[in-house]
Amino acid sequence: MTLAPLARYLPILDWGRGYDRSQFAGDMIAAVIVTIMLIPQSLAYALLAGLPPEAGIYASIAPIVLYAVFGTSRALAVGPVAVVSLMTAAAVGNIAESGTAGYVTAALTLAFLSGLMLLALGLFRLGFLANFLSHPVIAGFITASGILIAASQLRHILGVEAEGHTLVEIFMSLGTHLRDVNPTTVILGVSATAFLFWVRGGLKPLLRRVGLGPRLADIGAKLGPVLAIVGTTLIVWGFDLQERGVAIVGEVPQSLPPLTLPSFSPDLLSQLIVPALLISIIGFVESISVAQTLAAKKRQRIDPDQELIGLGSANLGAAFTGGFPVTGGFSRSVVNFDAGAETPAAGAFTAIGLALAAVFLTPLIYFLPKATLAATIIVAVLSLVDFSILKRACHFSHADFAAVTVTILLTLALGVEAGVSAGVITSIIVHLYKTSRPHMAVVGRVPGTEHFRNVLRHEVEVQPHVLSLRIDESLYFPNARFLEDQLSRYAADKRELTDVVLMFPAVNEIDLSALESLEAINARLKEAGIRLHLSEVKGPVMDRLKGSHFLEELTGEIFLSQHEAASKLDGCAPRQTM
Amino acid sequence: MTLAPLARYLPILDWGRGYDRSQFAGDMIAAVIVTIMLIPQSLAYALLAGLPPEAGIYASIAPIVLYAVFGTSRALAVGPVAVVSLMTAAAVGNIAESGTAGYVTAALTLAFLSGLMLLALGLFRLGFLANFLSHPVIAGFITASGILIAASQLRHILGVEAEGHTLVEIFMSLGTHLRDVNPTTVILGVSATAFLFWVRGGLKPLLRRVGLGPRLADIGAKLGPVLAIVGTTLIVWGFDLQERGVAIVGEVPQSLPPLTLPSFSPDLLSQLIVPALLISIIGFVESISVAQTLAAKKRQRIDPDQELIGLGSANLGAAFTGGFPVTGGFSRSVVNFDAGAETPAAGAFTAIGLALAAVFLTPLIYFLPKATLAATIIVAVLSLVDFSILKRACHFSHADFAAVTVTILLTLALGVEAGVSAGVITSIIVHLYKTSRPHMAVVGRVPGTEHFRNVLRHEVEVQPHVLSLRIDESLYFPNARFLEDQLSRYAADKRELTDVVLMFPAVNEIDLSALESLEAINARLKEAGIRLHLSEVKGPVMDRLKGSHFLEELTGEIFLSQHEAASKLDGCAPRQTM
Repeated sequence: MTLAPLARYLPILDWGRGYDRSQFAGDMIAAVIVTIMLIPQSLAYALLAGLPPEAGIYASIAPIVLYAVFGTSRALAVGPVAVVSLMTAAAVGNIAESGTAGYVTAALTLAFLSGLMLLALGLFRLGFLANFLSHPVIAGFITASGILIAASQLRHILGVEAEGHTLVEIFMSLGTHLRDVNPTTVILGVSATAFLFWVRGGLKPLLRRVGLGPRLADIGAKLGPVLAIVGTTLIVWGFDLQERGVAIVGEVPQSLPPLTLPSFSPDLLSQLIVPALLISIIGFVESISVAQTLAAKKRQRIDPDQELIGLGSANLGAAFTGGFPVTGGFSRSVVNFDAGAETPAAGAFTAIGLALAAVFLTPLIYFLPKATLAATIIVAVLSLVDFSILKRACHFSHADFAAVTVTILLTLALGVEAGVSAGVITSIIVHLYKTSRPHMAVVGRVPGTEHFRNVLRHEVEVQPHVLSLRIDESLYFPNARFLEDQLSRYAADKRELTDVVLMFPAVNEIDLSALESLEAINARLKEAGIRLHLSEVKGPVMDRLKGSHFLEELTGEIFLSQHEAASKLDGCAPRQTM
Repeated sequence: MTLAPLARYLPILDWGRGYDRSQFAGDMIAAVIVTIMLIPQSLAYALLAGLPPEAGIYASIAPIVLYAVFGTSRALAVGPVAVVSLMTAAAVGNIAESGTAGYVTAALTLAFLSGLMLLALGLFRLGFLANFLSHPVIAGFITASGILIAASQLRHILGVEAEGHTLVEIFMSLGTHLRDVNPTTVILGVSATAFLFWVRGGLKPLLRRVGLGPRLADIGAKLGPVLAIVGTTLIVWGFDLQERGVAIVGEVPQSLPPLTLPSFSPDLLSQLIVPALLISIIGFVESISVAQTLAAKKRQRIDPDQELIGLGSANLGAAFTGGFPVTGGFSRSVVNFDAGAETPAAGAFTAIGLALAAVFLTPLIYFLPKATLAATIIVAVLSLVDFSILKRACHFSHADFAAVTVTILLTLALGVEAGVSAGVITSIIVHLYKTSRPHMAVVGRVPGTEHFRNVLRHEVEVQPHVLSLRIDESLYFPNARFLEDQLSRYAADKRELTDVVLMFPAVNEIDLSALESLEAINARLKEAGIRLHLSEVKGPVMDRLKGSHFLEELTGEIFLSQHEAASKLDGCAPRQTM
């Protein structure tokens, strides 16, 4: 119990104390399977990020251990993921040439900044900032990123030098290099892609038929990329295909992750600050949704603010050990979970496995063709591409459709940063637009009752000199002005008006903008000889109003119920049925 | 009646048809008074904007006529105003040196861009964008701008060359020029300032005592600046003070507003786009609040979208006739209204008056000292400075206090653009933060009734295997994730849970993000063996849900009332009183 406050920031103290042999066995098996799966994935995402292959493996070692210490998910596997690697390539590619030391340093610095930001968001409990990204924006962004990633890998399949961070740039660049296409690479790349697509669809049923259980068959199918890598490496080695111009991974240093330093140049830091923020938030959103999905299956609890700290530590770890920005990945976490990982220790064991691989296995991938890595990327990311969000959003609301369309189009046309920023801005603007026009209804009395209903929907009685307006929304700055406009309109249009009653049963909150609008409305109605009343004001709103001078200035009264208001104001004028 | 659709965009068709002799008389008198008042004001604001004095007069002629044609307010007087002139100086000062042709062109271009933006906002009915500016942000911004403006005018009072767009810059620059202070200018400037302060407070009572009516006395007091200008001009002329280093206005061309062209250089346009947007929105917000206040007094109606068109036309007019950005000004509009302006024709007559002044009066202001213009600016803007907003906001809520403090500090420290942008961003972030944590209450049955209340506030009965959660807010992307987090927490903490009921009586709307969150919640609870139910779903929300697959996937039921839900789920478990 004495550890409780510390355990809030160090979840390892929580699960670590009860760790037993059966959990160890489960974690160990999961670690072996995940390690084997992660080797090709790590190499591939390093390629996608424009970094040397070993960076992918390094980026999976320290981060996974640090997340095990600080993270709250018991199954999340942290490391390089497709979308974040693409964003890294886009951000760092603006600053340095791929293959240079400056490029590597910029990637470390990006991980460092992103780590600091995630830590700060977690410590200051600012995880709510991720709410800026609505679901449709994320879905659109991931779909568009998948297309961009697949397109960016075509150059490795074709064996040409090409570049670009937008769809047009990529295809223009490929176009100008079409005459350099290497036929051997194309055959190898297309075969690997075809094989991997078959593995996705056909291997699992095959494994089931030869007698494997559903879970093993599933895991077996996930190891398809390893087969592709072993197979094509042997082919290149056996037929000396590198002599025919097939690009291979080549020499990879045999070492544990090195100790590295990010750059602290203010110039570089300021260039990377926006991309780092976007990467942090996208990475967090992706990771937390995987973590929550897996945690639910075992009724475990995820603490979003602690997750930020876990991911922040992981990225700082990547920055100091030769990696690049990382986050919790969907496919690796699912494999980890399905393979029976019980605690974050599985991650630590995976890290040991990868460290062994970094030391002993790297010579074996000398002949690994880059086309195979590109094929694994293409097959992996095409599963992210899902245009059904467009249909869903179109069906659901204009607002969501606008956000998702803008995100997809701008991501493809202008790149990841512009795309996701535009998506966020669009959804906030649309949100503000909707909020700025809250539902309001002119109400009248249902004859013979104490109930008041919308005059447009029900047969009700109204008093011609009284306007009763029910406001179906909290009042705050996005809609304060709308209320002013509406009341000016009513006051101008209804010449016989002497009293306005605002019904507040659905007003949960009021801010200073809305209070000042109410004061302006009160003053303007007074000029026009109209009294302003309120009815059915909720407790918290009444407290706010009492803290201001509004109640002293109010020309009319506060009624407990609309019935009371109507009865009191029912002085002279005859009733009218609408 | 056939004119109705056209009259929507041309309000002049509306009031112009019934124009009569009594309205003509009212408009004419108002025009004479406003013209006399506008001459010093226009000269002063041109000085503030860093432009030659005649630009201020030109900026009051075409804009006022165009607003009369397209605007909806019958009393609004459009022209240069203090805050917009300061923003113009800040924006244009970044691009060119004051006094150069480039500076004048940049100011025209700023008016042009701002006019286009206002027109576009009006035509596409995007006036709601002004909602980004909450009342506290505007109040803070205007207060800080008032201080900046007054500080920037000190150089004219001291007779030194100094510059700067932030408080620190201004005082640093004044400090380095202290030894150049011109004593004659100081005496003149301080006297003018003192006289104008006295006019504000003391002239009106004096005029009342000598027998003027309250309205005339009020208008008389507003003409104080004219007295100061005539007086100091005569003093300079009489004593040849320009020989003693008193800066004077000097030669002003005697002409009608010239035909000018803004620049269409993409480079300049892109540099001015953000300032133009800020100026447009600040100008619109200032103008519409004046217009609505005056319209209310006569129960007239202001159409915000049409106001945008009116102000947009006015700015385009300024751009093509040697002006700079304009908007509806508070003091001039009030004078216009008080002097009896009946229709926008008063504006047109004022324009004629100013055109005559531009042609015939400009030689008379040759000896007008700049210190007097600075004095009129200082006295005018210090009335804008009002720190009571800080106290109000502090008293009212942390959110509003944060927004107003950030706005004031950053406007003073970093300038107008940074200040207003930071204020907008702060209020949106704070809004999102508040929205992201909607009020939710676990509810239980009030014993013996069909009512359900918050378990924390009332003695109620709950069923231990059922969690009933009332959500007091619409569900959309800012709070979708919070709902997921909360329910994950409840599911993890309450082991005996078999059913979750979400009570939706206060959910007025739902967006795609929230729908997907509900789907994720449903799927995760299902994994945990918990059913999800909804109760008291409103019609519009139900329609949305019916348009999706959610209802098919929902593990539980939709109950019309919480009572029905509780009765149905009240199977086996015993009641417990909390």
